Amino acid sequence: MFGSVDVLPHDSITNGIVEQLPADFDPAALFKDLLSPIIGEDVIVNGESQNITEKYERKIVLGRNIHTMFLEITEPDMDDEVTGEKEAYIASVLAKYKKSLTEKTKYHLGYPYNLDFDYGALSQLQHFSINNLGDPFIESNYRVHSRQFEVGVLDWFAHLWELEKSQYWGYITNCGTEGNLHGILVGREVFPDGILYASQESHYSVFKAARMYRMECVKVDTLCSGTTVKGAVDDLDVVIKKLEEAGFSHDRFYIHCDGALFGLMLPFVKHAPKVTFKKPIGSVSVSGHKFVGCPMPCGVLITRLEHVNALSRNVEYLASRDATIMGSRNGHAPIFLWYSLNRKGYRGFQKEVQKCLRNAHYFKGCLVDAGIGAMLNELSSTVVFERPHDEEFIRKWQLACQGNIAHVVVMPNVTIKKLDDFLNELVMNRAAWFEDGKNQPYCIASDVGENYCLCSLHRS
Amino acid sequence: MFGSVDVLPHDSITNGIVEQLPADFDPAALFKDLLSPIIGEDVIVNGESQNITEKYERKIVLGRNIHTMFLEITEPDMDDEVTGEKEAYIASVLAKYKKSLTEKTKYHLGYPYNLDFDYGALSQLQHFSINNLGDPFIESNYRVHSRQFEVGVLDWFAHLWELEKSQYWGYITNCGTEGNLHGILVGREVFPDGILYASQESHYSVFKAARMYRMECVKVDTLCSGTTVKGAVDDLDVVIKKLEEAGFSHDRFYIHCDGALFGLMLPFVKHAPKVTFKKPIGSVSVSGHKFVGCPMPCGVLITRLEHVNALSRNVEYLASRDATIMGSRNGHAPIFLWYSLNRKGYRGFQKEVQKCLRNAHYFKGCLVDAGIGAMLNELSSTVVFERPHDEEFIRKWQLACQGNIAHVVVMPNVTIKKLDDFLNELVMNRAAWFEDGKNQPYCIASDVGENYCLCSLHRS
Repeated sequence: MFGSVDVLPHDSITNGIVEQLPADFDPAALFKDLLSPIIGEDVIVNGESQNITEKYERKIVLGRNIHTMFLEITEPDMDDEVTGEKEAYIASVLAKYKKSLTEKTKYHLGYPYNLDFDYGALSQLQHFSINNLGDPFIESNYRVHSRQFEVGVLDWFAHLWELEKSQYWGYITNCGTEGNLHGILVGREVFPDGILYASQESHYSVFKAARMYRMECVKVDTLCSGTTVKGAVDDLDVVIKKLEEAGFSHDRFYIHCDGALFGLMLPFVKHAPKVTFKKPIGSVSVSGHKFVGCPMPCGVLITRLEHVNALSRNVEYLASRDATIMGSRNGHAPIFLWYSLNRKGYRGFQKEVQKCLRNAHYFKGCLVDAGIGAMLNELSSTVVFERPHDEEFIRKWQLACQGNIAHVVVMPNVTIKKLDDFLNELVMNRAAWFEDGKNQPYCIASDVGENYCLCSLHRS
Repeated sequence: MFGSVDVLPHDSITNGIVEQLPADFDPAALFKDLLSPIIGEDVIVNGESQNITEKYERKIVLGRNIHTMFLEITEPDMDDEVTGEKEAYIASVLAKYKKSLTEKTKYHLGYPYNLDFDYGALSQLQHFSINNLGDPFIESNYRVHSRQFEVGVLDWFAHLWELEKSQYWGYITNCGTEGNLHGILVGREVFPDGILYASQESHYSVFKAARMYRMECVKVDTLCSGTTVKGAVDDLDVVIKKLEEAGFSHDRFYIHCDGALFGLMLPFVKHAPKVTFKKPIGSVSVSGHKFVGCPMPCGVLITRLEHVNALSRNVEYLASRDATIMGSRNGHAPIFLWYSLNRKGYRGFQKEVQKCLRNAHYFKGCLVDAGIGAMLNELSSTVVFERPHDEEFIRKWQLACQGNIAHVVVMPNVTIKKLDDFLNELVMNRAAWFEDGKNQPYCIASDVGENYCLCSLHRS
């Protein structure tokens, strides 16, 4: 199914910023965050939690501030220090919140976040205001920083993606979006009149960047088989080949690779195409809170030193002392990453990737055995299957859905036990949904192909 | 000294994005991050720390990746799980690092960061991957979030700056820079051909934004008395008055106020000019890790709902489901802020601000009594004084310096005891620096005025 779109990481984009580009190069299939309908969320007002059961379609409505849930901040009473009532209130809110997070974490299957981590050893550092102001390689007056950990992490990723230690520049970002904003900005600075080409299935931050940066942007169509939910990847080699065939030498385009989740997984998948700086790419970014797992969003951006050198010629014009997007930067995130990478090593990640692929394969098999249409891209751990009929069920398991399909991303914290629990609940619920014949399993043939569909028509 | 530049927060900027603006409006004096020379930093390689004593001037050199300090990530040995050597190594690195952070925090005086916080009650939440994906007011499939805390914090700030709950939009950012990037982006979307006017002393993120967004940018000269180090503030009222006099109705300009530190302090300073949405401003941002104090950088951005409504008309073009700069957002930061604000309340912050001003006044008096030229802007807690002659001393106390002056920012964690310790050490060192007459106290008259200078010429 994905034979022709197999190069870049799952949920990845390839943005070629070029001076001119023929419009006919191979469509690349990419991931984007999912805009699926959800149903009611817990409403928590002043610590009281109640569940709204009405179903509603999620809409993109900007510019509203409907207070469906909020914890009001109240002025302490004069005698709070004596009565301890404020502290008691806060403690009760936190206890309830922790309980609710535990539940939500337990039943989470839809986002590519590894929720299995133990950073207990690092809680001793929470008392410090750690800030890696500006460039990781330029020291700051402010000495409560963690640059020594950050540079260690950057070295590790540069090595993973095969860029010499002396040839890279990079930093730890706040999230995948910041990595994309940076990569595309560098591309624009290298080619000020360049056009941004990106798959229409790219993460929305790419189009946000184009608008922010006032760049001309061309959306490239994708194969219908290579959409969002299915863990599709860009065919970087085809993109490069097409550029070369159209006569573009390597100094006439800039490719930024968004390796959000799979930038860290793919290097450990057998026969998978490689993300490497040995190919003519300009930058790679990856999320730190996805496959590694981290309490807060973060990411890694690696680019070629020469490109940042190009930026540095504009230092006066930039009026900036660094080439990061943000000035103040979270100094805890690098320590979380350093801790995980150091304990697991490349071998540890390889094991985890293999486990995820194995568990995904197992899960897909179980679904099919239970008569539920399902598909698994061989290079990914994203299992696509027939959308459950009950929104409450979808919400409980925080599934990402699109049209007739849903997906589960098998991450390191998703155990066989968890998958079994999910499957048992799904099977039990399906019996009820389809009991009186008024509901039928959705047909997913148009999403995943007839071979993988087990609806009444295609069951055969 | 600062009588005429007294409106917006210390270290604040006012960016008026207007269609046309007379070039003669009153210069505004602003803060920017300091680019003072520093000397050697601890070099830590693989957990071994050594102090470099050579002095060097800090330069802005982008595009380098000199590994002066890094903690290499190594592959675990096969038998590490048995020997426990990896864990032991990591534990020893962390123990040393914690010790070093404790020391650095103890002697920190130069940055406007409140390092006095105790979030022990929140360490129970470090095990969760909390992510407030996208818009605070639009729910996400991913349910491990903290929107209920975030909205509570936003309400608190909207109330502080006098914008109706139903009239604002905002979110918790990763840092002050993100607040500026957002405010300026909204301004540009409201006035696509607008020109960005900002004081030349603005934080460098303002000029970075202009370049990123491809906006025409005009740097407005500042009064020589109103520079960076001295805690100068924009005169927002004068800016508005000049705009009005030049015939600009309120719908023809957009003002973003960068309230980095003083956005939260000034509301509690008697007779201080007000940051308020009752004036024709578009947005205000403030840092969360400065006056409040937070383990990692964060900030708050509040804008008028109508402006984000304007953005939302472009939702299809934006291809974004939210109006934030970042997609994934740190869900822990809102909880830290919520916790602090709830415990302190407006009254608590008022007390802290008063304490800071009192301590700053005390410190300035002690300096003068000791024969050291010093100046304190009455609306701020930034004490400016004669630059110490020893770079090692400057480094130890992480002082921000510029030319002949240094400054200390008296934050809530800066106690009388700490100031006394600093002063005693400074006085003792000065005796040594000036002992044989080869060094003289710097003249700071051109920086702060003759009245405040106690050099041999101006002592009289």
